[in-house]
Amino acid sequence: MKIKNPLITLTTDFGLTDPYVGIMKGVILSINPGVQIVDISHQIDAGSVMQASGLIKESYSYFPKGTIHVVVVDPGVGSNRRPILVKIGNHYFVGPDNGLFFPVISLERQTTIIHLTNEAYFLPNMSRTFHGRDIFAPVAAHLSHGVDFLEMGPVIHDSKKFVLPKARKQGHVLLGQVSRIDHFGNLITNISQKELDSFLAGSQPTIKIGNKVIHRLHKTYAHVDPGDFIALIGSSNFLEISVNRDRACDRLGLSSKDGDRVEIQVMRKRDMKGTK
Amino acid sequence: MKIKNPLITLTTDFGLTDPYVGIMKGVILSINPGVQIVDISHQIDAGSVMQASGLIKESYSYFPKGTIHVVVVDPGVGSNRRPILVKIGNHYFVGPDNGLFFPVISLERQTTIIHLTNEAYFLPNMSRTFHGRDIFAPVAAHLSHGVDFLEMGPVIHDSKKFVLPKARKQGHVLLGQVSRIDHFGNLITNISQKELDSFLAGSQPTIKIGNKVIHRLHKTYAHVDPGDFIALIGSSNFLEISVNRDRACDRLGLSSKDGDRVEIQVMRKRDMKGTK
Amino acid sequence: MKIKNPLITLTTDFGLTDPYVGIMKGVILSINPGVQIVDISHQIDAGSVMQASGLIKESYSYFPKGTIHVVVVDPGVGSNRRPILVKIGNHYFVGPDNGLFFPVISLERQTTIIHLTNEAYFLPNMSRTFHGRDIFAPVAAHLSHGVDFLEMGPVIHDSKKFVLPKARKQGHVLLGQVSRIDHFGNLITNISQKELDSFLAGSQPTIKIGNKVIHRLHKTYAHVDPGDFIALIGSSNFLEISVNRDRACDRLGLSSKDGDRVEIQVMRKRDMKGTK
Repeated sequence: MKIKNPLITLTTDFGLTDPYVGIMKGVILSINPGVQIVDISHQIDAGSVMQASGLIKESYSYFPKGTIHVVVVDPGVGSNRRPILVKIGNHYFVGPDNGLFFPVISLERQTTIIHLTNEAYFLPNMSRTFHGRDIFAPVAAHLSHGVDFLEMGPVIHDSKKFVLPKARKQGHVLLGQVSRIDHFGNLITNISQKELDSFLAGSQPTIKIGNKVIHRLHKTYAHVDPGDFIALIGSSNFLEISVNRDRACDRLGLSSKDGDRVEIQVMRKRDMKGTK
Repeated sequence: MKIKNPLITLTTDFGLTDPYVGIMKGVILSINPGVQIVDISHQIDAGSVMQASGLIKESYSYFPKGTIHVVVVDPGVGSNRRPILVKIGNHYFVGPDNGLFFPVISLERQTTIIHLTNEAYFLPNMSRTFHGRDIFAPVAAHLSHGVDFLEMGPVIHDSKKFVLPKARKQGHVLLGQVSRIDHFGNLITNISQKELDSFLAGSQPTIKIGNKVIHRLHKTYAHVDPGDFIALIGSSNFLEISVNRDRACDRLGLSSKDGDRVEIQVMRKRDMKGTK
Repeated sequence: MKIKNPLITLTTDFGLTDPYVGIMKGVILSINPGVQIVDISHQIDAGSVMQASGLIKESYSYFPKGTIHVVVVDPGVGSNRRPILVKIGNHYFVGPDNGLFFPVISLERQTTIIHLTNEAYFLPNMSRTFHGRDIFAPVAAHLSHGVDFLEMGPVIHDSKKFVLPKARKQGHVLLGQVSRIDHFGNLITNISQKELDSFLAGSQPTIKIGNKVIHRLHKTYAHVDPGDFIALIGSSNFLEISVNRDRACDRLGLSSKDGDRVEIQVMRKRDMKGTK
């Protein structure tokens, strides 16, 4: 069966200066000229499986069923790490077996993982350093063109596991961390709305990040004065620390690279009564 | 009626590192898999309505009739600012009602402005912080798929006004300002060819910007030596200050952020005769 | 004849902040709404014909036959440099006649070069500073839409020559240089696998770059410890100096701009026996 409006997304750490992303697109369109290609991001920090897996987890469900997500953050290219294809529900993921897709796999029930071994779907004269071009792009293109993914290699059950850091309760404190600092300087944490609601159980929170203490949750940026800190549930349903019309990260002396080293503590107001 | 070759452009201040732009594209292609999407810029300075409105005014007329321009520079997201759709001649514009489209509205006669209220064309479970994903992308996609824009909400007549700074005559001087410093370091001013021609009335100009004085207009960069300053009418028909094969902004000690703080003065040579 | 799945690639030094690339796409899609457009890079160093010509030489063959490559790195825009269209084998190239396409022309036998003079295929009201918009984009669009390239102007035989720096033998040493420092900090040299194999004739190499000496070739990054230097044949079949999971350029104190000023020396181990 040919997918009717095939769509391939690309997420890499290749940047936009070198021709690597363009070359992958050329390879894809040489195999399936009718496919649409969408860039998610090519500015993943070099080799950051954590950042890429978080990004793809945040994004994939907004794409149509049948979309093929190619993710190439591949510090182990050329080693014995396997190239894989993962079918999760109605989405396909193609990339190295280094844990990239594990956070999505953990979300969904029906998963099939293929070790890509059938070289009929690779470029000939494969390099040791650019499997995005030589394996992942052509595999995605052939898949989008109607090849059955089960023809591409054997099913495996031992793909690499990788767990994104989780928030956890410690006494009266819910401890999380910043998972991403975005383009606006917002600090997006790994504390989900669900975890927060369950922890707070109706109480207002007190939130500590670095030296900053925020005393309640708001709904959106505009609910505080320009320049004021705000805690809110962001667009991906995670707790977010922002400053209205300013960059929270700069205000806290953090750079966009510091993301995962920053701890965040949430306490319940009612637990703080009587404490000095 | 379905538009035959529907085209959506995107202009935002989201940058290219986060997945926000990719997610908007996923939303659009989930609703209308046949639409073509073109990025104009995602590097608008955060929250700069002035920069975005100038950019869209400079660009929109180069796109085919029926193109839908989505512009998300939206510092008031989540407040009571309205989401709107503007039909101007044969072009559609979708975004927040914060003045973004006013400079284009002022150019054209036939304008209809809709307050987007019909949630049937939004994503379900709308966030308070990402209306690009939840309102503007799906509205544009439905419009590109054949939905009549009049079904999307009531016509309004009080949309927010925003006027780009205009050049003005002050005695013998035409006073303008830099509206944008481009990637090459060229200073693009808000003095149009028409205003300049009318002011000069055949005289040669003397142009002052900072400490620099330029004594005539040239046709193109290559008409002066490498390293020399030049004043010319740029590709959008505005007066531009450049340096052949170098960056005018660096030479004047300006950064690309300084754009709209830089004044430019034009005088007529004949008015300067006899002045010391 | 109309090309069935027409494809246009864009390579410029325009950056992604200004609307210039978006405007070129608008012009193209106004003429041929069915064409697919792929960005190769818009981050070429301003005016660097060397970088752009290297990039397009590295990329073009990965695209389908019939692809039209528009390259606008055009420091001489507005001067008397000619706009040209080059047909090389089954690929088309459109851009200024400043040597950009010479490295590809030298690779292929069948080349036809057209001086673009037929203004029927340009935008009306041509500017002196933005031929990407006014000449190259519309010419590429008309070509993709079925116009015979021979209608676009006369065949010429004196197009500008430009030779990328070549590696050369000097006594017992093969002397090359860095041609590009990529996003990962890898140093990609101008010494091809073929030149290296022929020079080494089975011997292992000793490679000197700056103060660093590398004593053998490996197959891929993962074959050395993280942080170790490695010499290998990269994905474009040129000798590359890298550091496993780190940036070779930073380790050598080089910036990404230093590329073509860095010399690399290869010696044969067997020639070094007995040397102190």
